[in-house]
Amino acid sequence: MDLNLSVKRIEENLEHLKQFTATHGNGCTRLPFSKETRDAAEYLKEVMRCAGLEVREDCVGNLFGVLPGKDRTKPCILCGSHYDSVYNGGNYDGIAGVVCAIELARLLVEEKVELEEDYVVAAFMDEEGCRFGTGYFGSKCMLGDITLDDIKHFTDRDGISVYEAMRTYGMVPENFTEAKWPEGRIGKFLEVHIEQGPVLDAKEIELGLVDCIVGIQRYMVTVNGRADHAGTTPMDMRMDAVDMATKVISNIADWAREAGNGTVATVGYVTSVPGGMNVVAQSMTFSVDIRSTNNDVINGIHEKMLAKLDEVTTKYNGSYSVDTKLIITPCYMDKEMLDGLEESCKARGYSYLRMPSGAGHDALEIGQVLPTVMIFVPSKDGRSHAPQEYTPYPCFGKACAAMLDLIKKLG
Amino acid sequence: MDLNLSVKRIEENLEHLKQFTATHGNGCTRLPFSKETRDAAEYLKEVMRCAGLEVREDCVGNLFGVLPGKDRTKPCILCGSHYDSVYNGGNYDGIAGVVCAIELARLLVEEKVELEEDYVVAAFMDEEGCRFGTGYFGSKCMLGDITLDDIKHFTDRDGISVYEAMRTYGMVPENFTEAKWPEGRIGKFLEVHIEQGPVLDAKEIELGLVDCIVGIQRYMVTVNGRADHAGTTPMDMRMDAVDMATKVISNIADWAREAGNGTVATVGYVTSVPGGMNVVAQSMTFSVDIRSTNNDVINGIHEKMLAKLDEVTTKYNGSYSVDTKLIITPCYMDKEMLDGLEESCKARGYSYLRMPSGAGHDALEIGQVLPTVMIFVPSKDGRSHAPQEYTPYPCFGKACAAMLDLIKKLG
Repeated sequence: MDLNLSVKRIEENLEHLKQFTATHGNGCTRLPFSKETRDAAEYLKEVMRCAGLEVREDCVGNLFGVLPGKDRTKPCILCGSHYDSVYNGGNYDGIAGVVCAIELARLLVEEKVELEEDYVVAAFMDEEGCRFGTGYFGSKCMLGDITLDDIKHFTDRDGISVYEAMRTYGMVPENFTEAKWPEGRIGKFLEVHIEQGPVLDAKEIELGLVDCIVGIQRYMVTVNGRADHAGTTPMDMRMDAVDMATKVISNIADWAREAGNGTVATVGYVTSVPGGMNVVAQSMTFSVDIRSTNNDVINGIHEKMLAKLDEVTTKYNGSYSVDTKLIITPCYMDKEMLDGLEESCKARGYSYLRMPSGAGHDALEIGQVLPTVMIFVPSKDGRSHAPQEYTPYPCFGKACAAMLDLIKKLG
Repeated sequence: MDLNLSVKRIEENLEHLKQFTATHGNGCTRLPFSKETRDAAEYLKEVMRCAGLEVREDCVGNLFGVLPGKDRTKPCILCGSHYDSVYNGGNYDGIAGVVCAIELARLLVEEKVELEEDYVVAAFMDEEGCRFGTGYFGSKCMLGDITLDDIKHFTDRDGISVYEAMRTYGMVPENFTEAKWPEGRIGKFLEVHIEQGPVLDAKEIELGLVDCIVGIQRYMVTVNGRADHAGTTPMDMRMDAVDMATKVISNIADWAREAGNGTVATVGYVTSVPGGMNVVAQSMTFSVDIRSTNNDVINGIHEKMLAKLDEVTTKYNGSYSVDTKLIITPCYMDKEMLDGLEESCKARGYSYLRMPSGAGHDALEIGQVLPTVMIFVPSKDGRSHAPQEYTPYPCFGKACAAMLDLIKKLG
């Protein structure tokens, strides 16, 4: 393959796609079922057609481009990512993986690689979930993991449901079951994605070979005390919710540090009620997000948190409640394909790192049921979900080269 | 004195005053320079006139009722409190002290006590400061501690300045200097007030003899880190503002507990930016309110906080800033008058406790420059600044009895 040519084509596609944003000059805002996803979809379909693929858009907005294999009954190799974005996000998250998958199709055609099975480019709708609070919507529909209730239940800031948004977009939401692929039709899933973290950039490593997408447990915790006058209530007569809650929160990051092996724990949201400077807090609410490749480690931190909440609220006569927001178990990538990618990196002289993905991806959803691999490319300063998101174009070319080698081995 | 008669008259006045609220059925809302303060002022002046006092309202809304002494050139005995309230406050905070001062005048007249000096009832405007963010406005004007800049600078929720509110109220704000009393005109200040805390009620003690109004230091602290993805940023590459800040906050109440002697410290307000569940916090801001009768103790906790902020932000590469909101040094009440009140309690068989006031009062402002005493009556369950605020009427009668004994000794 001509790496420079690949990089040039990837650059051309991604630069063109930058225009499909609702927030020009302030990052990429390409929300599901919007004018911007429609415009991006039409462009992507045109690019896929030019690459010689059989193109179709399914009934939930996923795009597919098929390069037929010799035996079309064999489970296909699916490769891609998503084409929606967060609010004011970057120009690479998701969409770069779609463009890389298209570039791989171009390379397969140019090099006249005759695969046994179909090679299918996928561009998924609504992976981010930031408009409706969904997440992995398109890939879930492909796998048959969505119900009509979900489609009717989830709504955006303006109260518009997925159902209504789909209708406005010209779709028939009731048809969503047609988006499900027949059992056994997909053999493997491959995804290129930006790291969205600082590791590769800081270590100056070219490619990340994702061996596991971390499990996540997410909770909203409220510690309850009693509101009192901050001047007139003696220390031994108060039930200070901020005092109690911070005696728990101050340990959470440390528990992750102690666990090591890439475990992370984050309290990103905190608030107190009533919040007056001169009022002892009646309650304090905080979020807890724990991630690890080892589910026992996540459970362990969750248990330590509950024990500390028990201890502190017992000591100071308070109480607490924990609302579970998210439970995802770690998803391990396919070992054989990972070895294949590693061989390719070695042969081509690319620096690489086997690493976990701390963020969820379509590969997390699909990896639960199908052999899956994922390649990360570096994110400058680890910035993502922000207009500053940046990855040098040559990195995508190298990711494609490694994936091409793998596909040739598989096909 | 006939205690039952006093209690009956106090009850009658306070019950009548309950109607002067902007939030009927939801506590007392009597904001400065409102229809409600006007209506209350007219009623209070009428009650003072009926008690035989020479009544006047000064140019900032303070009300005075004078019972002439034998030598009118002698520094007077001033007794009273404020007649404004917070939003949705109670029916006793401030106003009960005004009514008690009037009852004392009635008792002095009835008992034909001939004081050497004038006995003056005071009803101060705007002690709470909750409309304009002022505080002790009326008593400060009386003492000459206000400037025209203050009057023009402070504004309410709707952007209306004290200046504009005074004009709308029918006043000439530029005349505010006329509210200042001549040097030496006031000899002593006496105030009856509800405790607004739980101590007397919990201990079932009838009267609190305030020996000190605590000093207060109040700060708004911001700890700065860096926003990062909560999944993709390894623990050793993040600067987590919530982690840093809570490692400081979790000690603040303990420092007050260790200091003892009634010292209190409160973090009532906390917030994180950007506040996403899956985003490492870029900054966390929190309020700190430290109160003690010993200024060195307050300074000590402030220093411990700075040292801990230094330690934690150095360890995790963060930074912090501290915005000083309030510095008040402790104000000690007049020892001789306190002894007088204690003698009276003993003689009458009232249970009493020498105690600090954890909240500020007109007596804090006036006590800086004049011999001052204060009596607390119990607040049911310590509730105050709320519609639930309650003190049984007989308590006010007993506070008046002790004050009457003191005034007789002084006069």
